[in-house]
Amino acid sequence: GEPAVLLLPGDGIGPEVVEAARRVLEAAAHAHGLRIRFDEVLIGGAAIDQAGDPLPEATLEKARRARAVLLGAVGGPAWDDLPVDRRPEKGLLRLRQALGLFANIRPLPGFVAAYGRSPLKPELLRGVDLVVVRELTGGLYYGPRARRALEEGGEEAYDTLLYRTHEIERVARVAFDLARTRRPVGQRRVASIDKANVLTSSQLWRETVRRVAADYPDVTLEHLYVDNAAMQLVRDPGRFDVLLTGNLFGDILSDEAAALAGSLGVLPSASLGGPVPLFEPVHGSAPDLAGRGVANPVGTILSAALLFRYALGHEAAAAMIERAVEQALADGARTADLAGEGEGALATEEMTAAILERLRV
Amino acid sequence: GEPAVLLLPGDGIGPEVVEAARRVLEAAAHAHGLRIRFDEVLIGGAAIDQAGDPLPEATLEKARRARAVLLGAVGGPAWDDLPVDRRPEKGLLRLRQALGLFANIRPLPGFVAAYGRSPLKPELLRGVDLVVVRELTGGLYYGPRARRALEEGGEEAYDTLLYRTHEIERVARVAFDLARTRRPVGQRRVASIDKANVLTSSQLWRETVRRVAADYPDVTLEHLYVDNAAMQLVRDPGRFDVLLTGNLFGDILSDEAAALAGSLGVLPSASLGGPVPLFEPVHGSAPDLAGRGVANPVGTILSAALLFRYALGHEAAAAMIERAVEQALADGARTADLAGEGEGALATEEMTAAILERLRV
Ligand SMILES: [Mg+2]
Ligand SMILES: [Mg+2]
Repeated sequence: GEPAVLLLPGDGIGPEVVEAARRVLEAAAHAHGLRIRFDEVLIGGAAIDQAGDPLPEATLEKARRARAVLLGAVGGPAWDDLPVDRRPEKGLLRLRQALGLFANIRPLPGFVAAYGRSPLKPELLRGVDLVVVRELTGGLYYGPRARRALEEGGEEAYDTLLYRTHEIERVARVAFDLARTRRPVGQRRVASIDKANVLTSSQLWRETVRRVAADYPDVTLEHLYVDNAAMQLVRDPGRFDVLLTGNLFGDILSDEAAALAGSLGVLPSASLGGPVPLFEPVHGSAPDLAGRGVANPVGTILSAALLFRYALGHEAAAAMIERAVEQALADGARTADLAGEGEGALATEEMTAAILERLRV
Repeated sequence: GEPAVLLLPGDGIGPEVVEAARRVLEAAAHAHGLRIRFDEVLIGGAAIDQAGDPLPEATLEKARRARAVLLGAVGGPAWDDLPVDRRPEKGLLRLRQALGLFANIRPLPGFVAAYGRSPLKPELLRGVDLVVVRELTGGLYYGPRARRALEEGGEEAYDTLLYRTHEIERVARVAFDLARTRRPVGQRRVASIDKANVLTSSQLWRETVRRVAADYPDVTLEHLYVDNAAMQLVRDPGRFDVLLTGNLFGDILSDEAAALAGSLGVLPSASLGGPVPLFEPVHGSAPDLAGRGVANPVGTILSAALLFRYALGHEAAAAMIERAVEQALADGARTADLAGEGEGALATEEMTAAILERLRV
């Protein structure tokens, strides 16, 4: 039947950018003779206000039955005083966990050179087209932790960076599979990030990745220490194809890579690994922009492109959206976050229209 | 009596850059009516070859009795096949530990804009003048670790990020004391880096830093999550003054910051905390350049400036060296790592001479 896409607009600018992406999704589907069934439910702060829970059971149930989830953003000052466990962000964390999404995908596409907002010199952006694959459900953020008073005075506190073979293996496969879809044979590369010269967990990481790599003879594997990777991302981002990282290293490096875009507004993401993948922009709910119709819809629209590619297996529709975004930016379409001095800024709807106009088979 | 400085040239280009720095140290001391006693012993690969140990007892003894240690670099392909515990790098690690050096200082000076090799757009380098203070003897690189087979197949491996109150406190004091020496009241800032929204150890880090900050009402404290810091370093490095980090986060962020210099050759460092501080360039032993007389001596010469400032308490001599380096770079003096297309490259001795010429009271 028709694939079902669950829309979770969420809070802040979430509803505005999700509506923009829905229109693009629908247009690209229509252009390819595809029909998509949309449903829409609450998550985050909006769900707290209506149902007292950032992830109501009904929302989770609908997510489980969908082919894919497209999310806007969650959170805002209205809910900042709630205890951590009942905040909007917790709804998204619980959703990712319930869906078993262990791999987070963050592309840095080459078009970030087009609008001149990157902090890097333009010549360093030539050939940039990388993606960070981050393990999302293990590592330092989920290991055993404790805090206790010491007899000699003061306290000690610890967190544990723990990985098991199968956790590394499955996210490594996501990275290598992804490398196969991006470039022709001979140009496929995975850079696995660790600190194997110091960390025991990194040694297991490196050995496991190396073993997985044996199944992908068409993909070149290199190992980089995380500090070196942090350096290379700034010095020569064009050298990377797929970066494969644990949870903590990926958190840091994917945000460093995002900074190279000059605006978070253009960046999409996907969370994969379970039966129902989730797609969302990298930016947050931006409460200061909410309701003003000025948010950049590109991050969510490109997340819709990733949805076509990874959830629906429809490369043509994905590429159509990406080309339209690239063309709109090349033609000078700019939301406020992208506009330089003296450049006019488009509203969310105008930017969306500029992209819709350029959707071509 | 005359302060004793122990020179540890080490391996690769170490001897060449240490000799250059010694000449600048001596000239700056002379200009201020100060005499320094130099001694010089082996460390690293050179010590392995001569004494079978990368840190011979005699070297450690002399280091303990010196006022400060100036090191070149250790390591090289000749010793790469030794077991990890007997490699040249281990000599340096053992020396730092034996001297109780728990704080590593890495400045990114504003002059990196002068020679045009930074990957950042020039306008983003305006006002850059930051220093990373990294905890060096605790955290994830030193906590309990293990690896074991699992009954269900595969293995698990972990490392522990553990901090105690007093470890955080003492490195925080180094950062706040440093902030007091760098800028006038009203402009002193410490950015403490953690991941307190997720990590228990970061919560202790943040609370402890906040308590130390109460003793420094003239220094403004802000807390930044490590992923956000990785982003801000690229977007707007000029916003930072002192960054205070744990061992792992500092490893990553200090290398990211170093990348902004466009060449590691110009960057100095200091390791503080014990009775005898250690100064060394950020770059390594660069075996491919060794013996050719082309290495950039600036990183070691600026480490000598830090030695005047932090070991001898002689700000005038430190500033004299830094001004001379800055002037030489502004006047176009370039070693090969700094020379752009069409710019001639100076040899190590020529670069050193260019700096010596510009030493002025
Ligand atoms: Mg992050
Ligand atoms: Mg490092």
